[in-house]
Amino acid sequence: MPAPYTLILLRHGQSTWNQQNLFTGWVDVRLSEQGVTEARRAGQLLAEANLLPDVQHTSLLSRAIQTANLALEEADRLWIPVKRSWRLNERHYGALQGLDKAETLSTYGQEQFMLWRRSFDTPPPVLADDNEWSQAGDPRYAGLGDELPRTECLKDVVERMLPYWESDISADLRTGQTVLVTAHGNSLRALVKHLDGISDADIAELNIPTGIPLVYKLGEDLMPLGPGEYLDPAAAAAGAAAVAAQGKK
Amino acid sequence: MPAPYTLILLRHGQSTWNQQNLFTGWVDVRLSEQGVTEARRAGQLLAEANLLPDVQHTSLLSRAIQTANLALEEADRLWIPVKRSWRLNERHYGALQGLDKAETLSTYGQEQFMLWRRSFDTPPPVLADDNEWSQAGDPRYAGLGDELPRTECLKDVVERMLPYWESDISADLRTGQTVLVTAHGNSLRALVKHLDGISDADIAELNIPTGIPLVYKLGEDLMPLGPGEYLDPAAAAAGAAAVAAQGKK
Repeated sequence: MPAPYTLILLRHGQSTWNQQNLFTGWVDVRLSEQGVTEARRAGQLLAEANLLPDVQHTSLLSRAIQTANLALEEADRLWIPVKRSWRLNERHYGALQGLDKAETLSTYGQEQFMLWRRSFDTPPPVLADDNEWSQAGDPRYAGLGDELPRTECLKDVVERMLPYWESDISADLRTGQTVLVTAHGNSLRALVKHLDGISDADIAELNIPTGIPLVYKLGEDLMPLGPGEYLDPAAAAAGAAAVAAQGKK
Repeated sequence: MPAPYTLILLRHGQSTWNQQNLFTGWVDVRLSEQGVTEARRAGQLLAEANLLPDVQHTSLLSRAIQTANLALEEADRLWIPVKRSWRLNERHYGALQGLDKAETLSTYGQEQFMLWRRSFDTPPPVLADDNEWSQAGDPRYAGLGDELPRTECLKDVVERMLPYWESDISADLRTGQTVLVTAHGNSLRALVKHLDGISDADIAELNIPTGIPLVYKLGEDLMPLGPGEYLDPAAAAAGAAAVAAQGKK
Protein backbone atom coordinates (compact mmCIF):
# COMPACT_ATOMS: atom_id res chain seq x y z
CA MET A 1 0.00 0.00 0.00
CA PRO A 2 1.27 3.51 -0.77
CA ALA A 3 1.90 6.15 1.92
CA PRO A 4 0.72 7.94 3.96
CA TYR A 5 0.77 5.32 6.70
CA THR A 6 -0.90 5.86 10.07
CA LEU A 7 0.87 5.10 13.33
CA ILE A 8 -0.72 5.67 16.73
CA LEU A 9 1.36 5.65 19.91
CA LEU A 10 -0.27 5.22 23.31
CA ARG A 11 1.43 5.33 26.68
CA HIS A 12 -0.33 3.18 29.29
CA GLY A 13 -2.50 4.84 31.92
CA GLN A 14 -1.42 5.43 35.51
CA SER A 15 -0.24 2.30 37.31
CA THR A 16 -0.46 1.55 41.02
CA TRP A 17 3.25 2.27 41.30
CA ASN A 18 3.02 5.55 39.35
CA GLN A 19 0.41 6.44 41.94
CA GLN A 20 2.77 5.49 44.81
CA ASN A 21 5.68 7.33 43.13
CA LEU A 22 7.88 4.21 42.86
CA PHE A 23 10.37 3.38 40.11
CA THR A 24 8.72 0.56 38.15
CA GLY A 25 10.67 -0.43 35.04
CA TRP A 26 10.05 -4.12 34.33
CA VAL A 27 8.13 -4.81 37.55
CA ASP A 28 4.74 -6.02 36.34
CA VAL A 29 2.33 -3.78 38.24
CA ARG A 30 -1.27 -3.17 37.16
CA LEU A 31 -3.23 -0.05 36.22
CA SER A 32 -4.69 2.04 39.01
CA GLU A 33 -8.37 3.01 38.86
CA GLN A 34 -7.29 6.29 37.27
CA GLY A 35 -5.24 4.29 34.75
CA VAL A 36 -8.30 2.25 33.79
CA THR A 37 -10.23 5.46 33.22
CA GLU A 38 -7.38 6.88 31.12
CA ALA A 39 -7.23 3.72 29.00
CA ARG A 40 -10.96 3.81 28.30
CA ARG A 41 -10.75 7.52 27.45
CA ALA A 42 -7.96 6.75 24.97
CA GLY A 43 -10.26 4.29 23.19
CA GLN A 44 -13.05 6.87 23.11
CA LEU A 45 -10.65 9.43 21.60
CA LEU A 46 -9.72 6.93 18.87
CA ALA A 47 -13.38 6.20 18.12
CA GLU A 48 -14.33 9.90 18.07
CA ALA A 49 -11.46 10.62 15.64
CA ASN A 50 -12.47 7.57 13.57
CA LEU A 51 -8.88 6.36 13.91
CA LEU A 52 -9.58 2.66 14.14
CA PRO A 53 -6.50 0.45 14.58
CA ASP A 54 -6.17 -2.60 12.34
CA VAL A 55 -3.42 -4.18 14.40
CA GLN A 56 -2.13 -3.75 17.96
CA HIS A 57 1.43 -4.03 19.25
CA THR A 58 2.10 -4.16 23.00
CA SER A 59 4.95 -4.82 25.39
CA LEU A 60 4.89 -7.89 27.65
CA LEU A 61 3.93 -5.81 30.68
CA SER A 62 0.41 -6.04 32.08
CA ARG A 63 -0.18 -2.30 32.40
CA ALA A 64 0.34 -1.79 28.66
CA ILE A 65 -1.74 -4.85 27.78
CA GLN A 66 -4.57 -3.75 30.09
CA THR A 67 -4.46 -0.30 28.47
CA ALA A 68 -4.61 -1.83 24.99
CA ASN A 69 -7.47 -4.15 25.93
CA LEU A 70 -9.55 -1.37 27.49
CA ALA A 71 -8.89 1.12 24.69
CA LEU A 72 -9.82 -1.45 22.03
CA GLU A 73 -12.96 -2.35 23.98
CA GLU A 74 -14.06 1.29 23.92
CA ALA A 75 -13.15 1.67 20.24
CA ASP A 76 -15.03 -1.57 19.40
CA ARG A 77 -11.86 -3.14 17.94
CA LEU A 78 -11.22 -5.99 20.39
CA TRP A 79 -11.04 -8.41 17.46
CA ILE A 80 -7.93 -6.98 15.73
CA PRO A 81 -4.71 -9.03 15.72
CA VAL A 82 -2.36 -8.42 18.64
CA LYS A 83 1.41 -8.83 18.71
CA ARG A 84 3.59 -8.50 21.79
CA SER A 85 7.30 -8.05 22.33
CA TRP A 86 9.66 -7.48 25.25
CA ARG A 87 11.35 -4.95 22.95
CA LEU A 88 8.46 -2.55 23.67
CA ASN A 89 8.86 -2.91 27.46
CA GLU A 90 9.57 0.05 29.70
CA ARG A 91 13.20 0.86 30.38
CA HIS A 92 14.65 -1.53 32.95
CA TYR A 93 15.36 0.70 35.92
CA GLY A 94 18.05 -1.54 37.42
CA ALA A 95 18.57 -1.27 41.17
CA LEU A 96 16.09 1.62 41.32
CA GLN A 97 13.16 -0.72 40.64
CA GLY A 98 10.89 -0.71 43.70
CA LEU A 99 12.43 2.43 45.23
CA ASP A 100 10.46 5.55 46.12
CA LYS A 101 11.24 8.38 43.70
CA ALA A 102 11.11 11.15 46.31
CA GLU A 103 13.32 9.19 48.73
CA THR A 104 15.78 8.42 45.94
CA LEU A 105 15.89 12.11 45.05
CA SER A 106 16.52 13.09 48.65
CA THR A 107 19.15 10.35 49.19
CA TYR A 108 21.16 10.86 46.01
CA GLY A 109 20.46 14.52 45.24
CA GLN A 110 19.02 16.24 42.18
CA GLU A 111 22.01 15.79 39.90
CA GLN A 112 22.37 12.00 40.31
CA PHE A 113 18.58 11.59 40.26
CA MET A 114 18.18 13.42 36.96
CA LEU A 115 21.18 11.61 35.50
CA TRP A 116 19.49 8.26 36.14
CA ARG A 117 16.12 9.52 34.96
CA ARG A 118 17.06 11.49 31.90
CA SER A 119 20.65 10.90 30.84
CA PHE A 120 20.80 9.15 27.47
CA ASP A 121 23.63 6.78 28.23
CA THR A 122 24.05 6.39 32.01
CA PRO A 123 22.15 3.36 33.35
CA PRO A 124 21.34 2.98 37.07
CA PRO A 125 23.26 0.27 38.97
CA VAL A 126 22.48 -3.33 37.97
CA LEU A 127 19.56 -5.10 39.70
CA ALA A 128 20.71 -8.33 41.35
CA ASP A 129 19.00 -11.52 40.17
CA ASP A 130 18.01 -12.35 43.76
CA ASN A 131 16.37 -8.96 44.31
CA GLU A 132 12.62 -9.26 44.86
CA TRP A 133 12.01 -6.96 41.87
CA SER A 134 14.23 -8.89 39.45
CA GLN A 135 12.78 -10.49 36.31
CA ALA A 136 15.32 -13.33 36.26
CA GLY A 137 13.25 -16.51 36.13
CA ASP A 138 10.09 -14.82 34.83
CA PRO A 139 8.69 -17.28 32.25
CA ARG A 140 7.71 -14.52 29.82
CA TYR A 141 11.39 -13.73 29.28
CA ALA A 142 12.59 -17.35 29.18
CA GLY A 143 13.55 -17.01 25.52
CA LEU A 144 15.87 -14.05 26.11
CA GLY A 145 18.73 -15.88 27.81
CA ASP A 146 21.65 -13.49 28.26
CA GLU A 147 19.74 -10.66 26.55
CA LEU A 148 17.61 -10.17 29.69
CA PRO A 149 18.43 -6.64 30.93
CA ARG A 150 19.50 -6.00 34.55
CA THR A 151 19.50 -2.24 33.97
CA GLU A 152 19.10 0.06 30.98
CA CYS A 153 19.70 3.63 29.93
CA LEU A 154 17.58 5.16 27.16
CA LYS A 155 20.32 4.36 24.65
CA ASP A 156 19.89 0.66 25.51
CA VAL A 157 16.14 0.98 24.99
CA VAL A 158 16.65 2.56 21.56
CA GLU A 159 18.98 -0.27 20.60
CA ARG A 160 16.64 -3.09 21.62
CA MET A 161 13.43 -1.35 20.47
CA LEU A 162 14.47 -0.34 16.94
CA PRO A 163 14.88 -3.91 15.59
CA TYR A 164 11.20 -4.55 16.43
CA TRP A 165 10.18 -1.27 14.78
CA GLU A 166 12.12 -2.20 11.67
CA SER A 167 10.84 -5.76 11.43
CA ASP A 168 7.34 -6.14 12.87
CA ILE A 169 5.79 -2.67 13.17
CA SER A 170 7.14 -1.42 9.84
CA ALA A 171 5.88 -4.53 8.07
CA ASP A 172 2.34 -3.92 9.33
CA LEU A 173 2.50 -0.24 8.38
CA ARG A 174 3.61 -1.03 4.84
CA THR A 175 0.49 -3.15 4.26
CA GLY A 176 -1.54 0.03 4.85
CA GLN A 177 -2.87 -1.01 8.24
CA THR A 178 -3.44 1.58 10.95
CA VAL A 179 -1.02 0.44 13.65
CA LEU A 180 -1.50 1.08 17.37
CA VAL A 181 1.57 0.69 19.60
CA THR A 182 0.66 0.60 23.30
CA ALA A 183 3.76 0.81 25.42
CA HIS A 184 5.67 2.87 27.98
CA GLY A 185 7.18 6.27 28.66
CA ASN A 186 10.69 5.28 27.65
CA SER A 187 10.06 2.77 24.86
CA LEU A 188 7.84 5.41 23.24
CA ARG A 189 10.43 8.15 23.84
CA ALA A 190 12.92 5.89 22.05
CA LEU A 191 10.56 5.53 19.10
CA VAL A 192 9.72 9.25 18.95
CA LYS A 193 13.47 10.04 19.13
CA HIS A 194 13.92 7.94 15.99
CA LEU A 195 10.87 9.33 14.17
CA ASP A 196 11.46 13.00 14.98
CA GLY A 197 15.25 12.83 14.73
CA ILE A 198 15.74 14.16 18.26
CA SER A 199 19.35 14.42 19.45
CA ASP A 200 20.75 12.42 22.37
CA ALA A 201 20.83 15.65 24.41
CA ASP A 202 17.39 17.00 23.51
CA ILE A 203 15.52 13.77 24.18
CA ALA A 204 15.92 14.48 27.92
CA GLU A 205 13.29 17.21 27.59
CA LEU A 206 10.68 15.05 25.86
CA ASN A 207 7.88 13.83 28.10
CA ILE A 208 5.02 11.69 26.81
CA PRO A 209 1.73 11.93 28.70
CA THR A 210 -0.23 8.82 29.69
CA GLY A 211 -3.41 7.70 27.97
CA ILE A 212 -3.54 10.17 25.07
CA PRO A 213 -3.11 8.77 21.54
CA LEU A 214 -0.28 10.40 19.55
CA VAL A 215 -0.86 10.11 15.81
CA TYR A 216 1.78 10.18 13.07
CA LYS A 217 1.31 10.18 9.33
CA LEU A 218 4.36 8.51 7.74
CA GLY A 219 5.76 8.65 4.24
CA GLU A 220 7.21 5.89 2.04
CA ASP A 221 10.39 5.91 4.13
CA LEU A 222 8.28 5.42 7.29
CA MET A 223 9.39 8.81 8.59
CA PRO A 224 6.86 11.49 9.65
CA LEU A 225 5.28 13.77 7.05
CA GLY A 226 4.63 16.29 9.84
CA PRO A 227 4.68 16.54 13.63
CA GLY A 228 2.89 13.87 15.64
CA GLU A 229 -0.48 15.09 16.91
CA TYR A 230 -2.11 14.26 20.22
CA LEU A 231 -5.85 13.59 19.96
CA ASP A 232 -6.44 15.81 23.03
CA PRO A 233 -3.69 18.46 22.84
CA ALA A 234 -4.67 20.34 26.00
CA ALA A 235 -4.75 17.21 28.13
CA ALA A 236 -1.48 16.06 26.52
CA ALA A 237 0.32 19.28 27.48
CA ALA A 238 -0.91 19.03 31.07
CA GLY A 239 0.05 15.35 31.21
CA ALA A 240 3.56 15.97 29.86
CA ALA A 241 4.10 18.66 32.50
CA ALA A 242 2.98 16.24 35.20
CA VAL A 243 5.48 13.61 33.97
CA ALA A 244 8.29 16.21 34.02
CA ALA A 245 7.44 17.06 37.64
CA GLN A 246 7.57 13.43 38.84
CA GLY A 247 9.64 12.81 41.94
CA LYS A 248 9.44 16.44 42.95
CA LYS A 249 6.72 16.05 45.54
CA MET B 1 7.43 -32.16 22.63
CA PRO B 2 5.99 -35.56 23.59
CA ALA B 3 2.42 -36.08 24.85
CA PRO B 4 0.47 -35.61 27.04
CA TYR B 5 -0.63 -32.23 25.75
CA THR B 6 -2.89 -29.90 27.73
CA LEU B 7 -5.92 -28.24 26.15
CA ILE B 8 -8.25 -25.95 28.09
CA LEU B 9 -11.65 -24.96 26.70
CA LEU B 10 -13.53 -21.98 28.08
CA ARG B 11 -16.99 -20.80 27.10
CA HIS B 12 -17.45 -17.04 27.50
CA GLY B 13 -19.42 -15.73 30.47
CA GLN B 14 -22.99 -14.48 30.27
CA SER B 15 -23.56 -11.78 27.66
CA THR B 16 -26.14 -9.00 27.75
CA TRP B 17 -28.20 -10.94 25.20
CA ASN B 18 -27.94 -14.22 27.13
CA GLN B 19 -29.37 -12.20 30.00
CA GLN B 20 -32.19 -10.87 27.82
CA ASN B 21 -32.81 -14.36 26.38
CA LEU B 22 -32.17 -13.32 22.76
CA PHE B 23 -30.60 -15.45 20.00
CA THR B 24 -27.15 -13.95 19.51
CA GLY B 25 -25.00 -15.93 17.07
CA TRP B 26 -22.59 -13.56 15.35
CA VAL B 27 -24.10 -10.36 16.79
CA ASP B 28 -21.23 -8.77 18.70
CA VAL B 29 -22.74 -8.17 22.13
CA ARG B 30 -20.67 -7.66 25.29
CA LEU B 31 -20.46 -9.51 28.59
CA SER B 32 -23.03 -8.70 31.26
CA GLU B 33 -21.84 -7.88 34.78
CA GLN B 34 -22.39 -11.52 35.67
CA GLY B 35 -20.35 -12.50 32.61
CA VAL B 36 -17.45 -10.34 33.79
CA THR B 37 -17.59 -12.05 37.18
CA GLU B 38 -17.65 -15.48 35.51
CA ALA B 39 -14.65 -14.61 33.35
CA ARG B 40 -12.61 -13.48 36.34
CA ARG B 41 -13.62 -16.61 38.25
CA ALA B 42 -12.40 -18.74 35.33
CA GLY B 43 -8.99 -17.12 35.58
CA GLN B 44 -8.90 -17.72 39.32
CA LEU B 45 -9.75 -21.41 38.76
CA LEU B 46 -6.86 -21.69 36.29
CA ALA B 47 -4.46 -20.04 38.75
CA GLU B 48 -5.63 -22.21 41.66
CA ALA B 49 -5.15 -25.36 39.56
CA ASN B 50 -1.76 -24.04 38.39
CA LEU B 51 -2.97 -24.56 34.81
CA LEU B 52 -1.27 -21.58 33.22
CA PRO B 53 -1.91 -21.13 29.50
CA ASP B 54 1.07 -20.50 27.23
CA VAL B 55 -1.04 -19.39 24.27
CA GLN B 56 -4.60 -18.16 23.84
CA HIS B 57 -6.98 -18.73 20.92
CA THR B 58 -10.21 -16.74 20.65
CA SER B 59 -13.00 -16.11 18.20
CA LEU B 60 -13.47 -12.64 16.66
CA LEU B 61 -16.43 -11.90 18.93
CA SER B 62 -16.02 -9.38 21.76
CA ARG B 63 -17.65 -11.52 24.47
CA ALA B 64 -15.07 -14.28 23.99
CA ILE B 65 -12.19 -11.81 23.80
CA GLN B 66 -13.38 -9.99 26.94
CA THR B 67 -13.60 -13.35 28.71
CA ALA B 68 -10.08 -14.29 27.61
CA ASN B 69 -8.67 -10.90 28.64
CA LEU B 70 -10.29 -10.99 32.09
CA ALA B 71 -9.37 -14.63 32.76
CA LEU B 72 -5.75 -14.03 31.76
CA GLU B 73 -5.65 -10.91 33.94
CA GLU B 74 -6.72 -12.97 36.96
CA ALA B 75 -4.29 -15.78 36.11
CA ASP B 76 -1.46 -13.23 35.65
CA ARG B 77 -0.90 -14.36 32.03
CA LEU B 78 -1.90 -11.25 30.08
CA TRP B 79 1.41 -11.38 28.22
CA ILE B 80 0.93 -14.71 26.41
CA PRO B 81 0.52 -14.72 22.61
CA VAL B 82 -3.06 -14.44 21.36
CA LYS B 83 -4.46 -15.74 18.09
CA ARG B 84 -7.97 -15.09 16.81
CA SER B 85 -10.11 -16.69 14.13
CA TRP B 86 -13.66 -16.38 12.84
CA ARG B 87 -13.60 -20.20 12.73
CA LEU B 88 -14.03 -20.18 16.53
CA ASN B 89 -17.08 -17.88 16.34
CA GLU B 90 -20.45 -18.91 17.72
CA ARG B 91 -22.83 -20.65 15.33
CA HIS B 92 -24.45 -18.10 13.02
CA TYR B 93 -28.11 -18.21 14.04
CA GLY B 94 -29.45 -16.96 10.69
CA ALA B 95 -32.81 -15.19 10.78
CA LEU B 96 -33.17 -16.01 14.49
CA GLN B 97 -30.41 -13.51 15.42
CA GLY B 98 -31.94 -10.76 17.52
CA LEU B 99 -35.17 -12.69 18.27
CA ASP B 100 -36.42 -13.46 21.77
CA LYS B 101 -36.01 -17.16 22.57
CA ALA B 102 -39.24 -17.46 24.55
CA GLU B 103 -41.25 -15.66 21.85
CA THR B 104 -39.68 -17.82 19.16
CA LEU B 105 -40.61 -20.93 21.15
CA SER B 106 -44.17 -19.74 21.56
CA THR B 107 -44.49 -18.69 17.88
CA TYR B 108 -42.99 -21.78 16.27
CA GLY B 109 -43.65 -24.45 18.90
CA GLN B 110 -41.35 -26.76 20.80
CA GLU B 111 -40.53 -29.09 17.89
CA GLN B 112 -39.36 -26.41 15.43
CA PHE B 113 -37.61 -24.51 18.23
CA MET B 114 -35.58 -27.54 19.32
CA LEU B 115 -34.84 -28.44 15.69
CA TRP B 116 -33.23 -25.04 15.17
CA ARG B 117 -31.44 -25.12 18.50
CA ARG B 118 -30.19 -28.67 18.60
CA SER B 119 -30.56 -30.46 15.27
CA PHE B 120 -27.17 -31.30 13.80
CA ASP B 121 -27.91 -30.45 10.20
CA THR B 122 -30.95 -28.14 10.00
CA PRO B 123 -29.96 -24.47 9.88
CA PRO B 124 -32.44 -21.66 10.66
CA PRO B 125 -33.60 -19.53 7.70
CA VAL B 126 -30.95 -17.31 6.13
CA LEU B 127 -30.38 -13.83 7.60
CA ALA B 128 -30.78 -11.15 4.92
CA ASP B 129 -27.75 -8.90 4.33
CA ASP B 130 -29.88 -5.82 4.97
CA ASN B 131 -31.10 -7.11 8.34
CA GLU B 132 -29.91 -4.96 11.24
CA TRP B 133 -28.24 -8.03 12.78
CA SER B 134 -26.36 -9.09 9.64
CA GLN B 135 -22.53 -9.20 9.59
CA ALA B 136 -22.33 -8.36 5.87
CA GLY B 137 -20.00 -5.36 5.68
CA ASP B 138 -18.40 -5.93 9.09
CA PRO B 139 -14.69 -5.14 8.53
CA ARG B 140 -13.51 -8.03 10.70
CA TYR B 141 -14.93 -10.47 8.14
CA ALA B 142 -13.79 -8.56 5.06
CA GLY B 143 -11.39 -11.36 4.13
CA LEU B 144 -14.08 -14.06 4.08
CA GLY B 145 -15.81 -13.02 0.86
CA ASP B 146 -18.39 -15.66 -0.07
CA GLU B 147 -17.46 -17.78 2.97
CA LEU B 148 -19.32 -15.36 5.28
CA PRO B 149 -22.17 -17.40 6.79
CA ARG B 150 -25.78 -16.18 6.63
CA THR B 151 -26.95 -19.11 8.77
CA GLU B 152 -25.38 -22.26 10.17
CA CYS B 153 -26.31 -25.61 11.67
CA LEU B 154 -23.89 -27.35 14.03
CA LYS B 155 -22.63 -29.46 11.11
CA ASP B 156 -21.57 -26.24 9.37
CA VAL B 157 -19.75 -25.14 12.52
CA VAL B 158 -17.87 -28.45 12.72
CA GLU B 159 -16.82 -28.07 9.09
CA ARG B 160 -15.49 -24.52 9.43
CA MET B 161 -14.00 -25.01 12.93
CA LEU B 162 -12.02 -28.23 12.34
CA PRO B 163 -9.56 -26.75 9.81
CA TYR B 164 -8.46 -24.24 12.47
CA TRP B 165 -8.14 -27.01 15.05
CA GLU B 166 -6.01 -29.03 12.66
CA SER B 167 -3.77 -26.16 11.58
CA ASP B 168 -3.32 -23.57 14.30
CA ILE B 169 -4.44 -25.10 17.61
CA SER B 170 -2.84 -28.49 16.95
CA ALA B 171 0.44 -26.87 15.98
CA ASP B 172 0.59 -25.01 19.31
CA LEU B 173 -0.29 -28.17 21.26
CA ARG B 174 2.46 -30.17 19.56
CA THR B 175 5.10 -27.71 20.78
CA GLY B 176 4.11 -28.67 24.33
CA GLN B 177 2.36 -25.41 25.12
CA THR B 178 -0.72 -25.34 27.34
CA VAL B 179 -3.39 -24.03 24.98
CA LEU B 180 -6.48 -22.09 26.10
CA VAL B 181 -9.35 -21.83 23.61
CA THR B 182 -11.91 -19.21 24.64
CA ALA B 183 -14.97 -19.45 22.46
CA HIS B 184 -18.70 -20.18 22.36
CA GLY B 185 -21.33 -22.78 23.20
CA ASN B 186 -21.51 -24.18 19.69
CA SER B 187 -17.93 -23.81 18.46
CA LEU B 188 -16.85 -25.63 21.64
CA ARG B 189 -19.58 -28.28 21.22
CA ALA B 190 -18.18 -28.84 17.72
CA LEU B 191 -14.69 -29.32 19.13
CA VAL B 192 -15.83 -31.60 21.97
CA LYS B 193 -17.82 -33.64 19.44
CA HIS B 194 -14.59 -34.23 17.56
CA LEU B 195 -12.49 -34.94 20.65
CA ASP B 196 -14.96 -37.23 22.38
CA GLY B 197 -16.22 -38.89 19.20
CA ILE B 198 -19.84 -37.96 19.93
CA SER B 199 -22.39 -38.98 17.29
CA ASP B 200 -24.45 -36.50 15.26
CA ALA B 201 -27.50 -37.58 17.28
CA ASP B 202 -25.97 -37.54 20.76
CA ILE B 203 -24.35 -34.11 20.44
CA ALA B 204 -27.85 -32.59 20.88
CA GLU B 205 -27.68 -33.55 24.56
CA LEU B 206 -24.29 -31.96 25.22
CA ASN B 207 -24.42 -28.59 27.01
CA ILE B 208 -21.30 -26.65 27.94
CA PRO B 209 -21.57 -24.28 30.91
CA THR B 210 -20.25 -20.71 30.75
CA GLY B 211 -17.10 -19.60 32.51
CA ILE B 212 -15.75 -22.94 33.77
CA PRO B 213 -12.49 -24.23 32.28
CA LEU B 214 -12.74 -27.73 30.77
CA VAL B 215 -9.37 -29.47 30.72
CA TYR B 216 -8.28 -32.27 28.37
CA LYS B 217 -5.07 -34.25 28.39
CA LEU B 218 -4.32 -35.34 24.82
CA GLY B 219 -2.12 -38.10 23.44
CA GLU B 220 0.25 -38.09 20.46
CA ASP B 221 -2.75 -38.28 18.10
CA LEU B 222 -4.20 -35.17 19.81
CA MET B 223 -7.17 -37.23 21.01
CA PRO B 224 -8.16 -37.34 24.72
CA LEU B 225 -6.40 -39.75 27.08
CA GLY B 226 -9.48 -39.58 29.34
CA PRO B 227 -12.64 -37.55 29.81
CA GLY B 228 -12.39 -33.77 29.89
CA GLU B 229 -12.57 -32.42 33.42
CA TYR B 230 -14.20 -29.20 34.58
CA LEU B 231 -12.18 -27.29 37.16
CA ASP B 232 -15.36 -26.75 39.23
CA PRO B 233 -17.48 -29.87 38.55
CA ALA B 234 -20.44 -28.89 40.75
CA ALA B 235 -20.77 -25.45 39.15
CA ALA B 236 -20.31 -27.02 35.71
CA ALA B 237 -23.21 -29.46 36.24
CA ALA B 238 -25.48 -26.65 37.43
CA GLY B 239 -24.38 -24.46 34.51
CA ALA B 240 -25.01 -27.18 31.91
CA ALA B 241 -28.52 -27.73 33.31
CA ALA B 242 -29.18 -23.99 33.04
CA VAL B 243 -28.09 -23.98 29.37
CA ALA B 244 -30.40 -26.95 28.64
CA ALA B 245 -33.32 -25.05 30.18
CA GLN B 246 -32.76 -21.90 28.06
CA GLY B 247 -35.82 -20.52 26.31
CA LYS B 248 -38.14 -22.34 28.67
CA LYS B 249 -38.92 -19.38 30.85
